[in-house]
Amino acid sequence: MNSAGSSKAKIGLIGLGLMGRPMGLNLLKAGYALTVWNRTAARAEALVAAGARLAASPRAVAEAADVLFTIVSDPPALEEVLWGKDGALSGLRRGSIHVDSSTVSPALARRAAAACAERGARFLDAPVTGGTWGAEKGELVFMVGGEAGALAEVEPILGVLGKRWFHLGAHGAGQTIKLAMNLILALQVGALAEALALVTGAGIEGEKLVEVLQSSMARAPVLDVKAPLLLKGEYAPSFPLRLMHKDLGLALDLGNQLGVALPATAAAREVYNYVKGAAKEDLDYAAVMKFWKK
Amino acid sequence: MNSAGSSKAKIGLIGLGLMGRPMGLNLLKAGYALTVWNRTAARAEALVAAGARLAASPRAVAEAADVLFTIVSDPPALEEVLWGKDGALSGLRRGSIHVDSSTVSPALARRAAAACAERGARFLDAPVTGGTWGAEKGELVFMVGGEAGALAEVEPILGVLGKRWFHLGAHGAGQTIKLAMNLILALQVGALAEALALVTGAGIEGEKLVEVLQSSMARAPVLDVKAPLLLKGEYAPSFPLRLMHKDLGLALDLGNQLGVALPATAAAREVYNYVKGAAKEDLDYAAVMKFWKK
Amino acid sequence: MNSAGSSKAKIGLIGLGLMGRPMGLNLLKAGYALTVWNRTAARAEALVAAGARLAASPRAVAEAADVLFTIVSDPPALEEVLWGKDGALSGLRRGSIHVDSSTVSPALARRAAAACAERGARFLDAPVTGGTWGAEKGELVFMVGGEAGALAEVEPILGVLGKRWFHLGAHGAGQTIKLAMNLILALQVGALAEALALVTGAGIEGEKLVEVLQSSMARAPVLDVKAPLLLKGEYAPSFPLRLMHKDLGLALDLGNQLGVALPATAAAREVYNYVKGAAKEDLDYAAVMKFWKK
Amino acid sequence: MNSAGSSKAKIGLIGLGLMGRPMGLNLLKAGYALTVWNRTAARAEALVAAGARLAASPRAVAEAADVLFTIVSDPPALEEVLWGKDGALSGLRRGSIHVDSSTVSPALARRAAAACAERGARFLDAPVTGGTWGAEKGELVFMVGGEAGALAEVEPILGVLGKRWFHLGAHGAGQTIKLAMNLILALQVGALAEALALVTGAGIEGEKLVEVLQSSMARAPVLDVKAPLLLKGEYAPSFPLRLMHKDLGLALDLGNQLGVALPATAAAREVYNYVKGAAKEDLDYAAVMKFWKK
Repeated sequence: MNSAGSSKAKIGLIGLGLMGRPMGLNLLKAGYALTVWNRTAARAEALVAAGARLAASPRAVAEAADVLFTIVSDPPALEEVLWGKDGALSGLRRGSIHVDSSTVSPALARRAAAACAERGARFLDAPVTGGTWGAEKGELVFMVGGEAGALAEVEPILGVLGKRWFHLGAHGAGQTIKLAMNLILALQVGALAEALALVTGAGIEGEKLVEVLQSSMARAPVLDVKAPLLLKGEYAPSFPLRLMHKDLGLALDLGNQLGVALPATAAAREVYNYVKGAAKEDLDYAAVMKFWKK
Repeated sequence: MNSAGSSKAKIGLIGLGLMGRPMGLNLLKAGYALTVWNRTAARAEALVAAGARLAASPRAVAEAADVLFTIVSDPPALEEVLWGKDGALSGLRRGSIHVDSSTVSPALARRAAAACAERGARFLDAPVTGGTWGAEKGELVFMVGGEAGALAEVEPILGVLGKRWFHLGAHGAGQTIKLAMNLILALQVGALAEALALVTGAGIEGEKLVEVLQSSMARAPVLDVKAPLLLKGEYAPSFPLRLMHKDLGLALDLGNQLGVALPATAAAREVYNYVKGAAKEDLDYAAVMKFWKK
Repeated sequence: MNSAGSSKAKIGLIGLGLMGRPMGLNLLKAGYALTVWNRTAARAEALVAAGARLAASPRAVAEAADVLFTIVSDPPALEEVLWGKDGALSGLRRGSIHVDSSTVSPALARRAAAACAERGARFLDAPVTGGTWGAEKGELVFMVGGEAGALAEVEPILGVLGKRWFHLGAHGAGQTIKLAMNLILALQVGALAEALALVTGAGIEGEKLVEVLQSSMARAPVLDVKAPLLLKGEYAPSFPLRLMHKDLGLALDLGNQLGVALPATAAAREVYNYVKGAAKEDLDYAAVMKFWKK
Repeated sequence: MNSAGSSKAKIGLIGLGLMGRPMGLNLLKAGYALTVWNRTAARAEALVAAGARLAASPRAVAEAADVLFTIVSDPPALEEVLWGKDGALSGLRRGSIHVDSSTVSPALARRAAAACAERGARFLDAPVTGGTWGAEKGELVFMVGGEAGALAEVEPILGVLGKRWFHLGAHGAGQTIKLAMNLILALQVGALAEALALVTGAGIEGEKLVEVLQSSMARAPVLDVKAPLLLKGEYAPSFPLRLMHKDLGLALDLGNQLGVALPATAAAREVYNYVKGAAKEDLDYAAVMKFWKK
């Protein structure tokens, strides 16, 4: 039996941000041996206090892991962690599985998969939805690209971190679906913002629109969560606008590589960009509303 | 007591299309005396068979009605019915109430309200959501602008046609909220179409995206209904694309009058327009997908 | 011989704004008898001082004219002047020619043409380019739709007001080409604004871009005129932004009636709209730059 | 005196496409010793026949050059040529000057400049306009970023290839201005395409619009060149659409890094993308017209 699939595989975790930390805590609670690394080492404190071992480099994490998780903020961060100085790829064990839960381009996922294969390891792109709340509650949803066999081996671990996973196809398929999903979320919230701007511009309270929305075919959980924030103008970051803006960029890059035009996504991205350019602090993507209400 | 509010007000109904006919049948079933008119008289047959009286002109309908309903396809149609030759306004009774359930501009709603007031009648703009299905089942939702008193008087009738109504403000407020709601619906379906185009362009089955969508924060009743149509490429009109396209135009007109920029709505409207321009037959607005899959 | 074509036809002029006044002065200088009307009568003073007769209504102008010129700000203004109380159509003489140099929709031009025909008069849609400067110097360019015979009769008069005219087709063709031309101008200036925003956002002086532009394939007279204004942020109205915004709306309306998608025009219109919505005073359309530099 | 500035510096040239070949021929005609390399070696034949030396690798070209020119199709191609196996950077001579005339991102230009500096060489980003025609006639225009001293040393060589150069600022400034210029060109041609689609959709010959355009403030050399192609539907590549599409992507990437929203550019890019996605063969960017005329 492969070590990755053993009942208590040794787990590595690189990236201890808003998502990585609660994921790590859930793995420790479930009894897994966990080795971690983060660019800013201070972020590891809570995990170390809970029993994790702090490694000196991504490479050292990989050397210690049957299953290596990475969850960092963007493609350059993943490239640095994998191919940079003392990068994880240089330490990856034969037979291990690398699960990347960052949101990056499908092309980068395929490049990572090829690099893993060269070292006798397997790769899964497995970006998540559910946000900080889902990470804390162990209710993440994984969108997985890669071999079914590798997925089967890590399922016990995914079951600690989340409730559901979808096997969507070959390497890159997880990222492709993730980008498509974030495109939909960004356009839904952007559409609500345009609708609220129109309604309030006409002198009607935005609350009236939200009330009708909630009994309509357009109601959606994301709008239930974000509508009150748009109405109040409170944009403390849950899913930061800068990351949604990045994901829209990745979706547009993919569309432009494939020759698939995405006109509304392109328009919405520039609205998010406008707000990002004017923002002084970190904001939730609900702050797209600031294009109108400054 | 005002005749409009009597326990069995005489009702007029102008516009016997996909919405008007089932509304009329429900009114007849509830025991209301109903006088109807339609530009194409043949469309009145089912209603006449069920007991409605067919009038010779919009004016004749208004002359016979305590409460006059209109539900026609667009602003020019409403203008013709109200101000045209033998138009309804010329027959409107003092003390009657005119309820317009067409989707038109807030400005036209206010103009109709003023014209009613000149004749001693009251006006409510009361566009609906729920589609043909809601009209048949008596489950429409009304978005109402106008005086609360007039609304109170017609509530028994609205209760026959629908389950809910929202009083949203002065004349025009119903139309404003309706346009904002359709903007959201059009952008949600448009976003799903862009996401499907991206995913299938990348060689992944669209069904995979829909599966993930349905367990995500982005899930919405309108997407549950439309996603299978987009996947199958079946676009028999439920809510016709030409009407959604018209409503997006009305929303953009309003935004441009108010100086409220709507970038994603503008982009989406041109996608719907592209499909409308290429279409040979009447299509549901889910056919926005044909921008990519021809 | 028809009176409209006589060597010194009696001319009527309705609309004495930035364009109408200098046009009227040129007609008086050329020896034409001129009857004028303007909604705000005070605007007629300079023309009356120069020999024009001020009429009491649009109707009175039409009654006095072999050739009636109208040049007002938008479609509702033209409708009011033609079909309103004491409107020009009610006074139009048999055999006269109505030349409308406003920028309106092709559909309105065709409606005006039909109304003229009912009264035994002929109509030309003849919107102009050249701005205030062209109106003053008698260097306007006319884009003409309608019958060649009617155009031939008014050519002596057009020769006083401008240097060139183009016969572009049937009624409405002049307006269609005018809207297409303004679309190009608005997008050229909008493109320069986006390019300047990009360059200055990157820390490079906008003057550098303009210098390169002027020796490139992209150079254009409109950019020569507007670039210095964008660089200085000086937007005294020459061609007001609110009128360019209106013309983009007419172009989009036409495209949406025809099923011709105009994605970049739609995007640009919302940028102009954003600036219009935020503007406190009347601005030139070069002020589209204020979307970025507030 | 530095070798790069000597009266007859030895020149290296990497990239022998539609631009590189005529540039190389002009350098040979002017008496410069020229060493060349191209990924597809067959493209070097004409230059070798004219006296150039064909090197075995980018590194070998750099080793032989006082001044190294690169002009390749996109950022990955430049990265490969500089940092790939036997890349040019590994052979660069101390005191030499690397002039990159590719169109790439300002960030890549700065990265190349830093890599040159590490090796004791200097770097200029110097993208060009003028197309194949300008390359053949020696009439290119260079947009230069980098140190004035380095520019001064290569001016004799630039004078062989072109008539003008603009020193626009530090490393990356040349690329930034180039992207801004191509943005303007792409939007001008895109605007003409939208205007033609509108006019022809209304049943008017496109030639009418072009005739008016040519006597208007909107006339531009690029439109003089491209308008006949759009009218005829002839799109043999002069500046290929795939490269313009790439440059719009680079401009949007830059705008999104800087937080500068570019709504019309984003809309236009998706139109170019739509055409690129549907194209079977290599097309000029004037083929943006195929969005409407298929």
